[in-house]
Parts: sequence; structure tokens; C-alpha cells
Amino acid sequence: MNFREKLTVATRRNDSLLCVGLDPDPERMPENIGVFEFNREIIDATVDLVCAYKPNLAFYESLGSDGLDALKQTVEHIPADVPVILDAKRGDIGNTARAYARALFDYLGGDAATVNPYLGLDSVEPFIQYRDKGIFILCRTSNAGALDFQSLRCEAAPGTELRPLFEIVALKAKQWNTHGNIGLVVGATYPEELKLIRSTHPDMPILIPGIGAQGGDLASAVGYGINGQGEMAIINSSRQILYASRESDFAEAARRAAAGLREQINHYRTHHTSGL
Amino acid sequence: MNFREKLTVATRRNDSLLCVGLDPDPERMPENIGVFEFNREIIDATVDLVCAYKPNLAFYESLGSDGLDALKQTVEHIPADVPVILDAKRGDIGNTARAYARALFDYLGGDAATVNPYLGLDSVEPFIQYRDKGIFILCRTSNAGALDFQSLRCEAAPGTELRPLFEIVALKAKQWNTHGNIGLVVGATYPEELKLIRSTHPDMPILIPGIGAQGGDLASAVGYGINGQGEMAIINSSRQILYASRESDFAEAARRAAAGLREQINHYRTHHTSGL
Repeated sequence: MNFREKLTVATRRNDSLLCVGLDPDPERMPENIGVFEFNREIIDATVDLVCAYKPNLAFYESLGSDGLDALKQTVEHIPADVPVILDAKRGDIGNTARAYARALFDYLGGDAATVNPYLGLDSVEPFIQYRDKGIFILCRTSNAGALDFQSLRCEAAPGTELRPLFEIVALKAKQWNTHGNIGLVVGATYPEELKLIRSTHPDMPILIPGIGAQGGDLASAVGYGINGQGEMAIINSSRQILYASRESDFAEAARRAAAGLREQINHYRTHHTSGL
Repeated sequence: MNFREKLTVATRRNDSLLCVGLDPDPERMPENIGVFEFNREIIDATVDLVCAYKPNLAFYESLGSDGLDALKQTVEHIPADVPVILDAKRGDIGNTARAYARALFDYLGGDAATVNPYLGLDSVEPFIQYRDKGIFILCRTSNAGALDFQSLRCEAAPGTELRPLFEIVALKAKQWNTHGNIGLVVGATYPEELKLIRSTHPDMPILIPGIGAQGGDLASAVGYGINGQGEMAIINSSRQILYASRESDFAEAARRAAAGLREQINHYRTHHTSGL
């Protein structure tokens, strides 16, 4: 089963577009618990409520090789029928990108990964070659700095009309999608841009970070993010779920937060698709 | 001593602009040697010939947590007076970028790191806040894919003249350089672009990959890369040195390759600066 199929099956089985971002921060976790144990409890408490999990590698790498071990254990603990998106935002020249792809897919066992487009096709190609994996290209990120370069109006080809860089990235992603395994990252904090990208990419999976702590609006993230079947939008939430409580009830609190968010998402999902 | 001072001291002591890229590839290394042991022999054989070392994290991460341990040991083995540039090309939103900066500077102990600009200032800021560290922003990378986005002609501000994206990145890097710790990555495979960037950034450190296996011309890399004092160009070579021999003489062969390359670099350096 490839990434897209796995995502579809999990979305339908759990009736969910919610992705839980597994970003363990020892300063916000309950005391006296290890990173893997924390993740395991979060996963066990939410596994029937999500369409995917998304660990961000930064939080593991900052803990050194113990962190990397905890990440590997975490990926192994996630049931095989729930896809794991490794949020690594890698980008390097071909020879080196191959080593990153091996790290994320062969060593860690991710079902999908995020990649940065700045180095162009040959930096993304070694990932795309893993046909069963999902490759999410950063298009419009959720942060304020997205305005620095992603918004610049550029010529896609000499003499053509100017359009924002993130749109050109999205167009290239479509051209590169010969194996049908490419997706895009578009932040919930830029709803108009999300709407635009969904209109030009009617069926591509879109990973949507930025709701909750980052302030993105959930209604538009869902309404603008889903495809015609009300799917292929992956709504990520990390802190709101992981740190719903810092006490011994953290896993139950995470479950309540995840269930509530899934319900809200499904409200907007039904509301929107019925209005199409 | 901050990164720039450390780089200057090593450059002058070893009369060298050569940076050895520590990119261990088990398929090209001698048999029956571990990654750390390999690096240690390479370092011991070249430490008086270089201005810096540059491990690329991909090659370690593809080996899992053992790889990360080998990288940490490698950084610890490099004498404190030779700077270590961790080539990680990271880029993520602020909260996450802070975790990456901790991983690279606090956990691994690098003196400098490479970062990807696509996510804008708040993705670079947590690195810049380490004032003693060097932050190399990807500007014009050495690969073919650099043409996909970095060459696109863009408006730096609405209504202004179009210029290539990599030039706008370089201009932003200058604006962001309030602590004087920013450098740029410009590939030797694009000599005209390197010449341009050096002219607009007369004294910023430039990390220059792409000679050797990637085909960049050494004479122009040096001639166009150096500042008015014949310094601040960091000429990286990886495969040409690491894999000069696959036999038991690999460290001596690496030393001969590094010495030869340093000499060639110094030839172009003297030739060029005397002609200024």
C-alpha cells in the first residue's frame, strides 16, 4: 500500500483529517517521563482519532542520539496502518539527498517526508524515487518569514507574468509528480493562499500546519484544504494536543483535545463539502 | 573567539583556504573501518592543511544513532582551533529552528552551520542569536537544480527591478547580519554568480562547494571567492580527498590530495590578489 492509499484508509477508518505532531519538548512534558514513553502514551490514546502522525526531527535531534533512538522506537510503535510523516524539511544536492532519503525512509521507516524546494529538482528527486512514500514539498509555510521569499513575485519563465514564488513551487511540484507521490505543505495561517493552491491542485495531498498555537483559522484550513471528496487535507496539531495537561492525566487530556479537534474538523468538513 | 576569528586564525596558521568535507560513505571507505576511525585518520592527516572541516549531516543520519554518535566524536576530535562547519541546511519555523540550533551548536558542538533561507528570517534568527557561531545561508547552491528557483527573476519589493532570487537572498542576508556572524554558500559551479556576490558582499565569509567531483573550476572559485585580503573564501572538497585511496594508505593519500589542493588554491590566491 502506498502513502496515499494508507492515508485514505486511515482517514476513512478513523473518520479523521487530524494529524498529531509528535514534537516532544522536555520542558513541557510531564516530569520523569522519557520521550519514547511520552509518545507511546500519546499514540495509544489517539490512534483511533487520527489520519497520520508527524514527528518533527528537530525535537529529537536536539536530544542527540538518544533522541534519534526514541524517534525510531516511536515510528516502530505506530501501527502499520497509520501513516507517519517525518517532518524534516531536508534539501541537499543529489548525492547527499539520497543519504537523507535513506535516513528517513530506510533507517527511520517513515511513510512520508517533508522536503525544502530551494535546491530544485535534483534535491527532491531521490525522495520521489521512493514511489510508495509521500513527498511533501514546502510551498507556503505557516510562519511570518514565509513573506520574506515565498511571497516575492517572480517570473516562472523569462517574459511571463509575475506570480508569487510559492505558486511557482506548486507548479513545479505538479510537473515533478510523475509517480503521483508528491504533496504540498501550505500553512493554515495563509488561508487565501491555501484556497488558491487547492484550486490549482484539486487532488494533491496538502499538509496543513499552523492551527492552534500559530493562530491559523480551522474553518478555512478545512474548508479550503479538502479536495472534492472532503479528503487529502492533513490538519496538523502538535502543542494543543501534546500539552493539554502536564500532569499524570496528560494522555487522557491529549485524547480529549484530539477528539474535540477531530469533531470540529469534521463539522467544517461536512459543512463545507455539503455546500460545494 | 568567535567563528570568524577562529576561521581567520586557522586560515593564517595553515596558510589555507581548504575545507575538508567529512562525508563518510561506507561504500567508498576502506573496508573494516568505522566512521569515526575513518574521520579521525583523515583529520589527523590533514589538520595542518585546512582552514575548516565540514561534516554533512546526511551521511551520519543515514547510519542512524550510531552515525550521530560518530559525528559527535568526530567534532570532539577536531582541535578547538580548527572551526567545524556543520552542513545541515536546516530551515524550520522559529520554535523548531531553536531546537535545530540546539542540536547543532549545543549538542554536537559545531562552530558554524548551514541554513536554508526558504522559510525566511524567523527560521534563521534562532541560529543568528548564537553570536559566536557562523551562520551560512544557502544562496546559490552548486547543483543543477539551483536553476529551478534560485535563478528566477523576482521583485525584491513591488515595482522594483527584477533580479534573481539568489541575489535577493544575499541582500536579505546582509540586512539580517546585525551580529556580523552571517556567511553565504555559493557553489563553484556558478563562477559568474560567485563573482557578483563577492562584489556586493566584499567581506562576508563565503563557503564554496562544488570543485572536484561536481566540476566547478578552482581558479575562478578562488579568484572570485576571496576578499581583498585573499581570505574569507572557504573552498570545500570532500570526495577528492576522502577517497583518494581505498587501501590502507587512505590517510596518506588524503594528505597528498589535500596538500596538492591547498597548493593549487594558494597559487590562484596569490596570482589573483597580486593582480587586484
